Amino acid sequence: MRAAIFRNGEIVVDQLPEPKPAAGQVLVRTLACGICGSDLHARKHARHMVELSKHLPGRTPMDLSRDIVFGHEFCCEVLDYGPGTQGKLKPGARVCSLPAVLTPQGPKGIGYSNDYVGGYAERMLLSEALLLEVPNGLSAEHAALTEPLAVGVHAVEKAHVRGDEVPLVIGCGPVGLAVIAALKLKGLHPIVAADYSPKRRELAQKLGADIVVDPAKTQPFSTWAEHAEMTPEQKAARPPLQALLPPLKPALVFECVGIPGVLQQLFEGAPRDARIVVVGVCMETDRNEPMLGIIKELNVQYVLGYTPEEFAASLRLIAEGEVDAASLVTASVGIDGVAQAFADLANPERHTKIIVEPWR
Amino acid sequence: MRAAIFRNGEIVVDQLPEPKPAAGQVLVRTLACGICGSDLHARKHARHMVELSKHLPGRTPMDLSRDIVFGHEFCCEVLDYGPGTQGKLKPGARVCSLPAVLTPQGPKGIGYSNDYVGGYAERMLLSEALLLEVPNGLSAEHAALTEPLAVGVHAVEKAHVRGDEVPLVIGCGPVGLAVIAALKLKGLHPIVAADYSPKRRELAQKLGADIVVDPAKTQPFSTWAEHAEMTPEQKAARPPLQALLPPLKPALVFECVGIPGVLQQLFEGAPRDARIVVVGVCMETDRNEPMLGIIKELNVQYVLGYTPEEFAASLRLIAEGEVDAASLVTASVGIDGVAQAFADLANPERHTKIIVEPWR
Repeated sequence: MRAAIFRNGEIVVDQLPEPKPAAGQVLVRTLACGICGSDLHARKHARHMVELSKHLPGRTPMDLSRDIVFGHEFCCEVLDYGPGTQGKLKPGARVCSLPAVLTPQGPKGIGYSNDYVGGYAERMLLSEALLLEVPNGLSAEHAALTEPLAVGVHAVEKAHVRGDEVPLVIGCGPVGLAVIAALKLKGLHPIVAADYSPKRRELAQKLGADIVVDPAKTQPFSTWAEHAEMTPEQKAARPPLQALLPPLKPALVFECVGIPGVLQQLFEGAPRDARIVVVGVCMETDRNEPMLGIIKELNVQYVLGYTPEEFAASLRLIAEGEVDAASLVTASVGIDGVAQAFADLANPERHTKIIVEPWR
Repeated sequence: MRAAIFRNGEIVVDQLPEPKPAAGQVLVRTLACGICGSDLHARKHARHMVELSKHLPGRTPMDLSRDIVFGHEFCCEVLDYGPGTQGKLKPGARVCSLPAVLTPQGPKGIGYSNDYVGGYAERMLLSEALLLEVPNGLSAEHAALTEPLAVGVHAVEKAHVRGDEVPLVIGCGPVGLAVIAALKLKGLHPIVAADYSPKRRELAQKLGADIVVDPAKTQPFSTWAEHAEMTPEQKAARPPLQALLPPLKPALVFECVGIPGVLQQLFEGAPRDARIVVVGVCMETDRNEPMLGIIKELNVQYVLGYTPEEFAASLRLIAEGEVDAASLVTASVGIDGVAQAFADLANPERHTKIIVEPWR
């Protein structure tokens, strides 16, 4: 079968052996697979990722001397079942799955693995136990947005929203947009969102941001503070020693950029007691001033992925039209277009989510 | 009056003008003042501290070209009252206060200020509204431990202990020991504590640690894991996808060292979902691998100081013998001994807390 392969640091198109489903596995045809920012990062920082895997018990680091097929945001069509399966979904059924295969040695990831190809290949193997049928009528390219939406849903769940916070979303790429959509579903308002790109700010508004900021013109925390003033009741209820601090509601900040230096900028700009949820996946060494975190008593919650329940809920949200997934997709390419798509995604004005359709 | 002054990067003894109490203020005689690790850090990193103050609205940075008197862990004797005071405590009464003076422009810190001398001076100014009378019979040198104990009490409060965590305290200097004492009061067991110094490990056990680790011999997280295994009921209650992860109770880690690199070591060693409370005050730029925090979904809560309630509770805990404060004090010096004491504190085998008694 054909695939866009990560080989020697580049994306190349080549033939790979046909995958054969083992016990509990399903052979599927990839209908649509989104290109994730993490794939772009991984291409650049693969060696560093492997280094860090040493600190993660139970993880098999990627062997960069062997082929890897990226792609973990997929919607597929059932082709055939391996042994020890139930075969509840007929061949032709369209399915999503969280990007993992259940093995006797524990779950193994799909998309950054030498053993399981991701969605930039014509066919892949999934675990039957993780299959979710795509509700009738939802297109494969929109069903493929389940995974990135689940990232936002999970980030907002992990934030343990109390209801009195004013959220600030830093970065409105697919991750930031998913966070905005999930915040809107929680009913937390106003949602303040910042991005340098006018197109991304427009999308942020479409997905639920109430106020958007261009950080080139305005410090995002200044705009945030304008919309985070306490109610007179909240002001009156403050203990005496706090009465001289700025009367601001709690800040709930989502870091959705994932490059070095951003967390330090948030440490500088954040108000006292801010909670920062790190959703952007920074794969490089970062530097910061812990003293700022200390003096402001900041809380940093790093998040990754989602639970099976959050993943299933995200598919439902898209299928039921609760989240305007369609507005995220800016292009579709075949396997031959993946390498160029990686380059094109550098322009936030032109692209948000590019979908790979390996059957093209 | 005489004081040990931070001047041109060194601690020197000199005369300072006699402080005069303004409205709401009390003139006190310093009876005892602990030397804090932050004072040692501040002497070394004063310029960096001033740089960082730029990001803190409402804070007046120290002017390093002018004199500063450190010392924020004090017990004093009331001498005289300024205008607009009530004078409830008679001259001679012994008092503690959190290290701040209430001014019309908000609270101003004592100990890292050009305007308010700290406890390494013969006399100081306090706000009447913040005075706490020392309960009868408690010695001044033990009452002076209120502040460092409050740091531990606050750190444990900010951890929002649920009761199922197994704590690990990294570093058993005064901050780590205060955290251990506060954890013991919460009834959270077993308390695992790590320090390179045999003397500090001995103190950790005295204050409540159930298991101590020498990080030169054993990875603290390995020892922690041996004592953090889930009960059979907890194991049985796990969702299927988690059933293959190590069956460990939640980790609650207290970083009580405060030097660059320690947080990264915790990122490397910590189990999934660990919560890290940063109590050590690292005043230098730090580097870490956010990717490890992300993959493990770590939570980092930076903390500083304490509330007035926590401070008052800490004084009571010492006075009522709930915390063995006495075992922390390893020496007392006069004003002339402060500079040498800063050097001596580098040896954890000899010293834990040195008390300055400016009247000596």
